[in-house]
Order: sequence, then structure tokens, then C-alpha cells
Amino acid sequence: VHIFESTGLRYDGNHLLVLDQTLLPQKEVWVTCDSADTLINLIQRLAIRGAPLIGVSASVFLGIQASTNISFEDFTQMAMRIKAARPTAVNLMNNIEQILAIAKGSSWQQKVKQEAIAILNEDKELCEKMAIKGADLIHSGNRILTHCNTGGLATSGVGTALGVIIKAHQQDKSIHVWVDETRPLLQGGRLTAWELQKEGVNHQLICDSMAAMLMQHGRVDKIFVGSDRIARNGDFANKIGTYSLAVLANYHKVPFYVVAPQTTVDAACEQGADIPIEMRDEKEVKGAIGGFGSVQWAPETSSAFNPAFDVTPAELVTGWVLDTGVFQQQDLAKPLWWLG
Amino acid sequence: VHIFESTGLRYDGNHLLVLDQTLLPQKEVWVTCDSADTLINLIQRLAIRGAPLIGVSASVFLGIQASTNISFEDFTQMAMRIKAARPTAVNLMNNIEQILAIAKGSSWQQKVKQEAIAILNEDKELCEKMAIKGADLIHSGNRILTHCNTGGLATSGVGTALGVIIKAHQQDKSIHVWVDETRPLLQGGRLTAWELQKEGVNHQLICDSMAAMLMQHGRVDKIFVGSDRIARNGDFANKIGTYSLAVLANYHKVPFYVVAPQTTVDAACEQGADIPIEMRDEKEVKGAIGGFGSVQWAPETSSAFNPAFDVTPAELVTGWVLDTGVFQQQDLAKPLWWLG
Repeated sequence: VHIFESTGLRYDGNHLLVLDQTLLPQKEVWVTCDSADTLINLIQRLAIRGAPLIGVSASVFLGIQASTNISFEDFTQMAMRIKAARPTAVNLMNNIEQILAIAKGSSWQQKVKQEAIAILNEDKELCEKMAIKGADLIHSGNRILTHCNTGGLATSGVGTALGVIIKAHQQDKSIHVWVDETRPLLQGGRLTAWELQKEGVNHQLICDSMAAMLMQHGRVDKIFVGSDRIARNGDFANKIGTYSLAVLANYHKVPFYVVAPQTTVDAACEQGADIPIEMRDEKEVKGAIGGFGSVQWAPETSSAFNPAFDVTPAELVTGWVLDTGVFQQQDLAKPLWWLG
Repeated sequence: VHIFESTGLRYDGNHLLVLDQTLLPQKEVWVTCDSADTLINLIQRLAIRGAPLIGVSASVFLGIQASTNISFEDFTQMAMRIKAARPTAVNLMNNIEQILAIAKGSSWQQKVKQEAIAILNEDKELCEKMAIKGADLIHSGNRILTHCNTGGLATSGVGTALGVIIKAHQQDKSIHVWVDETRPLLQGGRLTAWELQKEGVNHQLICDSMAAMLMQHGRVDKIFVGSDRIARNGDFANKIGTYSLAVLANYHKVPFYVVAPQTTVDAACEQGADIPIEMRDEKEVKGAIGGFGSVQWAPETSSAFNPAFDVTPAELVTGWVLDTGVFQQQDLAKPLWWLG
């Protein structure tokens, strides 16, 4: 019996199980996170992915660890190690700082466990709020383009950008979704396509380079993407390829929305240029690796460049869809605008 | 002994051999084009590819066929079948029309054979002229971005856009080449990378969606691409993803050049919208297929959209590098501008 169960995460009160997303959609393999090393490895190889889900998984894991005989010093050290697993998404750092801030006094273990569950439930609630607010922006007949995976697999709820899209579908709006395959790790081609076909949403896969031609032909009405970190000025980091879409949307006058819980806003980060961008192994670009097999097409001696994220400046964004509201350019002038 | 030999084509006077480009860079397999069905199949599955090489291969094949006992009627019918193998690149159509126009009178067989050899040699010469003219645009220290494959594998000479880049390298200019992998068929990741490492040119592979971020960071000085058909007004069709690059280059003020022989200009085509765009099988987008193996990552029930080309409007082009000269916006007003 699971106390909590979402598309990619299960928690029975004592164990955290996560769906290995590198193996989807071919294989659905659940892995028990029974050590910090296991968790960090799962995060680093993107078996656990999606900014909110990474933070939630780490929180639940630490909640479980707090119930063991672990010393406070070992617990803190473990939390700091996990916090450093990936550098770009801010949720992981924020959630762990939130847990460490509350881990004080004689009953710190109990407080940590409660906080972890609170983080898990809050993320689910924030998804629902975003989905409802964002779905108002989608009308029947709309052709929506999205990038990467931002659905139930990326959060503990219905998702961010994909949550909005699925909500619009559930509201009986007739929509068509263009799914960017999202090279190199194919989160669109594997995960978003998998979620959309499970939900019965009309969709077509495209290569990332085809989005421009669709916009040129007037076949994209709106773009919705997620975010791994939003700076105070509205700039945001997201999966590589997002900035490309933002420039193309600007040129073709296609509304471009970023969807994220306000926990993705990094209040300490002034602007996008301050967000660290993770560089990953070039072998991800030289071929394709997953539950579907592993191939390399590039010559052995050719090298590759592999930034995992890019940064989109605020001026290219039509609206920021947060759980606290839908914000526009003029809202950015207000301090703490993301709190609504 | 071959009368003619280039990177992807061999001709010994009686047989045409082509390198199966779907198997590169893992396997170098030469195939004899011994029937129209074989040739058409090689063209349709992109074993023979690159607008100039498709036209040249078809011409040489017809030259060989003319030396057999084939009747004029059968020859004409065969030529028309080959002409329809792929719809977008104009060289195939132009070259075959050129051959049919000369195939008259009692010694039509001899005329066809001579014309085929002339087409083969002309393509090589045009490549050399373009390479020299285009290389003048490249300076030492330049970081050049290119898309698809436009080198020795795409022509019977040094290539179009890639020919320009390799020429600049041979002129001892220190350059760095960003190679778009060019999904879905990975002509960049497989073929351009293979040609550049053979030539010893400094290069790095990127996913197509990374080009925008590189331009944002000021790391792309110039972009060179090829073309499958240029309209009279300067609009041009090229591998899907080219239009995306053109818009991104425009936004980031990066010079954007198209390189092609003037045989790629379709004088009968007024504007880009008149160029037919080939739609290909969705399985190319749902996975990756080649000499490296075959994988499918998308869910079986998800569908995909797969246009093989897109059209870039003339206003996004900095210069047209033809064998007849480097043309700019103001040159387009002149009738038959492409003849220099």
C-alpha cells in the first residue's frame, strides 16, 4: 500500500520507489532508492528527472533517512551531497535547504519527515493550481507545441507545461500537440509522447528543427514549456532547445508561456546569466541511449558539445504561468512578483 | 580503373558505383547501379543523396544505359521514372531534362553518353569555383556553423557549403566548425563529421536545438548551408532545420550564406512557396536508422510529422554563393541574376 503514488514516484511510508525514466517507454522498471549513492546516480543519469520531481524525490528520501539511526552530522552531510547532484534546477537546492532549515532540536527527525511529506503534497497541489490557471489560456482548436517532458513524470502531480495541456484536454477542449523530440535525451519523443498517448491526447512527434517550419506555416498557436530555474527578473533556464523556440516564437508572433511552480523561482538569482548550466557527456550527442537500446552514429574521433540547458531572457516570454497566477511583462517590475 | 572517382561516386566507363551513405560512417559499402529500380531505390532511401550528386548519378546511369540495346522509347520512359524519384531537389529534374533534350537523331546514344560525362565534370568544376569564392568569406579564427551534409558526399566535387569550409581550412585558415547533427537522418552527425575528421578540420557535433544557444553566446561567426532548389526570387529549399537556422541567424545578426551551383537555381520557379516539399515516413522521426543499427524510442501508437525540407525566404539570406559569384539582396532585382 502506497501512501503516495504518482506517475513516476511511489512512497509507502518506509521506501521510496521511482520509475527509471531512462527505460521508458519500452520498460517500466521501479527502483528502490535505498542509499544516497543510488539516489544521486538516479538523478545524474536522468532516471529521476524534471526539476520538481528531483526536489521531491530527494526530500522524501531524506524524510526516510531521518527515521533511521543516522546521526545529525551524517544526515546533514548526506543532504549536502544530494544537493550537489545536478547544478541547474533550483528545486533540489531549495527543497534541501528547506529541510535543513527545519532540522533543528531534539525531534529533528520527526520534523524532517513531516517537511518531506509537506513538500511532496505541496508540489502536487501547485501542479493542480498551475494546470487550472494555464488551461484558461488554451482554447478549443489550438495547436500547442511543447518541449522536453513536463508532465506527471516531471513532478509529483499532473505536471507543469504538460499538466496545463492535459488539463485543457480533460476540459474537453479539442487540441493538437506538437511534441519536440528533445535531443539528445529524447524526453519528448519518449516520455511526453508516452504520457499523451496514455491520456488520449491527439499529438504528433517532430524533430526539434521542425518547429520553425510549423510556425512559418501558421500551424502553432501557442507554446508551453517548463523551467528548471526562474531568475528574479523573469529570465529562466530550461532544457536545451527552449531558447531556440523562444526566438522562433518571437519572430513568428506565437505566444510563448513558461509554466512552473513558484518554488522554481530562485529569489537569490538576479538574472538568467547567473544560472549555472550543466555540461554533460558528449556521448549523449554522438548517439542515442535508452531502454530502446544504444547506438552511436558519429565517428569515434569526432567530439561533441552538450549543454543540458539554455537560458531564455524574460523579454521573449509572453507569460509566466505559476500556481500564484499568470504574470506578464508589466508584472516583473513588482518586487516578489512571483508570489502574486 | 575508374575514369572518374569522387568521395561517393565511381565510374569506370561501363559501371556506376555509389557509396551507400546510409551505412556511413560505420561501413563503406559500394553498390553497383545496374538497373533503374536499383538507382531509384538508392535515391529514395538516401543511399545516394545531396542535390548535385543525385542529378549527377542519374545522368551517369543514363549515359551507361544509352550504350546498351535499349530502345529510345524505353530510354525516355526510364529517364522519366528516375526524374520522379524525389520531388524537392531540382538538379535531378534539370539534369534529366538536359539529357532528354540532347537525345535526338540517329546517334542519340553517343550524345547522351557525352552529355552525362559533361554533367559529371561540370559539377566538379562548379564545386571548385564555389569553394574558392566562398572561402574568401571565411577568416582565420572564424567559428562556422553548418547543417546537413554538403561536402564531397553530396556532389561529384569538393561540395557546396562544406566545400567552402574545407577550402578555407586548406588555405590554412584556423577555423572551428559546429556541425548540426541534422535529425532525423543525421547527415551532419554521420556524414559531415566523417568528412571533417578525414580532412583534419577542427569540429564539434551539436544537436540541432543547440545552435541558438551558441549564437546567443556569440560563438558562431558565420553560417553556411547548401540548397536543393533556389527560386528566381532567391528563396531556397534545403534540409529541414535550415529555415530555423536562418531565423535564428537573423535575430542574432550572424551572416547566413547559401552555397550552391547555379544548376540548383530553378528558373521556372518564381518563389519558395512553389517548391514541392517531400514528406517522408514517420518512422524516421520515431527512432534512428543506419549502419550503426536501428532503434525506435517513441511509443508504437504515437504518430510523427516528417517534412524532409523547409523553405528559407530570400530576406533572411546574407549572400548566395554560386559558381558565378557571391550575390547579395540588391542583386536579386536583376533578371537572371544567378548567371552573374
